[in-house]
Amino acid sequence: MEQAFLNELRDNFGIEYHNVDLLTEAFTQSSYVNEHPNLKLQDYQRIEFLGDAVMELMVSEYLYKKYPNYPEGKLTRLRAAIVCEDSFSAFARECHFDRYIKLGKGEENNGARQRNSLLCDIFESFVGSLYLDQGVAAVHRFVAQVVFPKIDNGTFSYVMDHKTNLQEYLQRDGEVEITYHLISETGPANDTKFTVEVIAHDQVLGRGTGHTKKIAEQAAAEVALQKLQADD
Amino acid sequence: MEQAFLNELRDNFGIEYHNVDLLTEAFTQSSYVNEHPNLKLQDYQRIEFLGDAVMELMVSEYLYKKYPNYPEGKLTRLRAAIVCEDSFSAFARECHFDRYIKLGKGEENNGARQRNSLLCDIFESFVGSLYLDQGVAAVHRFVAQVVFPKIDNGTFSYVMDHKTNLQEYLQRDGEVEITYHLISETGPANDTKFTVEVIAHDQVLGRGTGHTKKIAEQAAAEVALQKLQADD
Repeated sequence: MEQAFLNELRDNFGIEYHNVDLLTEAFTQSSYVNEHPNLKLQDYQRIEFLGDAVMELMVSEYLYKKYPNYPEGKLTRLRAAIVCEDSFSAFARECHFDRYIKLGKGEENNGARQRNSLLCDIFESFVGSLYLDQGVAAVHRFVAQVVFPKIDNGTFSYVMDHKTNLQEYLQRDGEVEITYHLISETGPANDTKFTVEVIAHDQVLGRGTGHTKKIAEQAAAEVALQKLQADD
Repeated sequence: MEQAFLNELRDNFGIEYHNVDLLTEAFTQSSYVNEHPNLKLQDYQRIEFLGDAVMELMVSEYLYKKYPNYPEGKLTRLRAAIVCEDSFSAFARECHFDRYIKLGKGEENNGARQRNSLLCDIFESFVGSLYLDQGVAAVHRFVAQVVFPKIDNGTFSYVMDHKTNLQEYLQRDGEVEITYHLISETGPANDTKFTVEVIAHDQVLGRGTGHTKKIAEQAAAEVALQKLQADD
């Protein structure tokens, strides 16, 4: 494996492999194996099989603990938005994994290196190789750096629709008027931050911020719901 | 939770819960929650969400390590035969979990207690509760007692078709005659044990036993394949 990648892993994530062969296997696509039969390489698929299950557990446990009031259906919906090709390929790019995949020439020429399905596989196989090399705690540290902050900052909450949930919650015992007030707009035009308050029964129930009014409203509704449910 | 169940868990599996509430939640169906609103119970679904992911990883890691020569496709097929309703409901019955599920009267009268889908859920939620209460090592011990021996003894190998795999392997460089010889039949008529040898190039490649000739042949082919691939 290229020294540049080993340096990146060390500098960006504090990861140093005991067995670099595992990392190499995790980044080797079958097209590369086929072009280099004398190297007797393994492609990443077996390690990806394992990494997929490791990621599933990491994300499930985080969601289970972070959202004690979410019913199973919501947890499942949220998990599906995180454990998926779109998200994993984005994580892989963010970690520069696309630069270090070992591809055959044909696949390279076909643009495979930027294909989401491949990048998703590589993210999973990386996690599998880290799990094999260093165990669950090391994977947890990596995922806590790359994945969990995005859960915390609401990257995946678009599947949740907190506004609808808040409405349903407040209207259990009849109609309630719920309003969202924009209370500030800060920052430059291309990076504006909106802050919104949600109000019902003349009370401010929660406040949220975001790069669009819609995201800020969802964030405010989420805060309100969490407070209300904590008080239940 | 009934003392009888706590005793069973202790005597059969060496498990003693720190927080028995987790175990109770894992065995409580929504119909029971609805019938006892004043008890403020939670049903098992959130814990099952977690337990599902725990089982997926347990089984994936076991298969990955036990079958170093299996390509990803075979691992996936085998995992699907283990991580499924039929298997998990059978494990649940074997552990007597069916006796301790908390069901509402309507569900009880509908025969829910013996429904495979419920028993599968309960197996997963039990595993989730054990994971929360005692961590991954405790789950591993439980699964090593209840699940892994069945992988070892070939309960799920019906999805594998080792005979076809052996044939494909031996015929990479041209036609080869492969024969299976029944070498013994032992035990009473209702519990006969068959032993079969698989032969190619005048060499015995492997020997297998089973309760039918077909299972014994598959077992012999599996042994032969493992030996041949280990020599590669």
